[in-house]
Amino acid sequence: MTTEEIWAGTALHSWKLVIGRLDEFIGPLDDEQLQRPVAPGRNRLVYLVGHLTATHDRMFPLLGLGKRLHPELDEAYFTNPDRAFPDPVSPSDVKKAWNEVNSKLSAAFDALTPKEWLQKHSAVTEEEFAKEPLRNRLAVLISRTNHVSFHAGQAILAK
Amino acid sequence: MTTEEIWAGTALHSWKLVIGRLDEFIGPLDDEQLQRPVAPGRNRLVYLVGHLTATHDRMFPLLGLGKRLHPELDEAYFTNPDRAFPDPVSPSDVKKAWNEVNSKLSAAFDALTPKEWLQKHSAVTEEEFAKEPLRNRLAVLISRTNHVSFHAGQAILAK
Repeated sequence: MTTEEIWAGTALHSWKLVIGRLDEFIGPLDDEQLQRPVAPGRNRLVYLVGHLTATHDRMFPLLGLGKRLHPELDEAYFTNPDRAFPDPVSPSDVKKAWNEVNSKLSAAFDALTPKEWLQKHSAVTEEEFAKEPLRNRLAVLISRTNHVSFHAGQAILAK
Repeated sequence: MTTEEIWAGTALHSWKLVIGRLDEFIGPLDDEQLQRPVAPGRNRLVYLVGHLTATHDRMFPLLGLGKRLHPELDEAYFTNPDRAFPDPVSPSDVKKAWNEVNSKLSAAFDALTPKEWLQKHSAVTEEEFAKEPLRNRLAVLISRTNHVSFHAGQAILAK
């Protein structure tokens, strides 16, 4: 492994680990269990999974990796708070979308070279990036990994 | 900035961001508010802050950055579940220890070179590290950043 591969590999390993742990928790849950709130009156598990799926789906255009797969989840799970909109699909289908988005993202991530990880993401202009080189693809990966951890900490409370 | 400084800088920026956000939330809370559980019957905020402080305090020896500052928090906040042991100090003092540990850690992190971030941490042997080069200081930093996010997601529920 080259030094650059170790930098990129360490960050990617963390992404896969955090997603894998959440998968282990939600994988065995059925539709009824996914309807549980993480605490009384708080977000339901299905909302968190839908929210994370929509967030990750947006990483395709943000990181220049192609088109989104599931924009139909945005209204219920991204733009609005839980229960403001009826669930557009069943909790199992949300879980299916979550797995689909992550496995396609992971494949795209594995294909990126270390240099490409340090290139700018699409929400920053060339001018801004020249001044702020930390606004790169890697920063988005680390930020989204932490975002999964943030909601995983909540999800686990529904146990 | 060199390429290596961008790799290290991006990960460090995320660490500071995640800690800064939790600081913003717990900073204004008084002793009574820090006694609140994140959900009925769950960990109290002071337990989470104590737990994160003890975890970060252990990063000094783990990353070869010196001695621990607050081992007295371990019994109540690290080794045992919440409420199993009486709080050894007031919630404000736990918060003070949290700030002290993080500011000393951050200073030590800023002094590390990119190469030092990719060196092994102290919980892995030379033999293991030769086979698994991702078990480096950087991996610990990213893992602990996610650990803060995990509990920050819970803490925020006490609002």
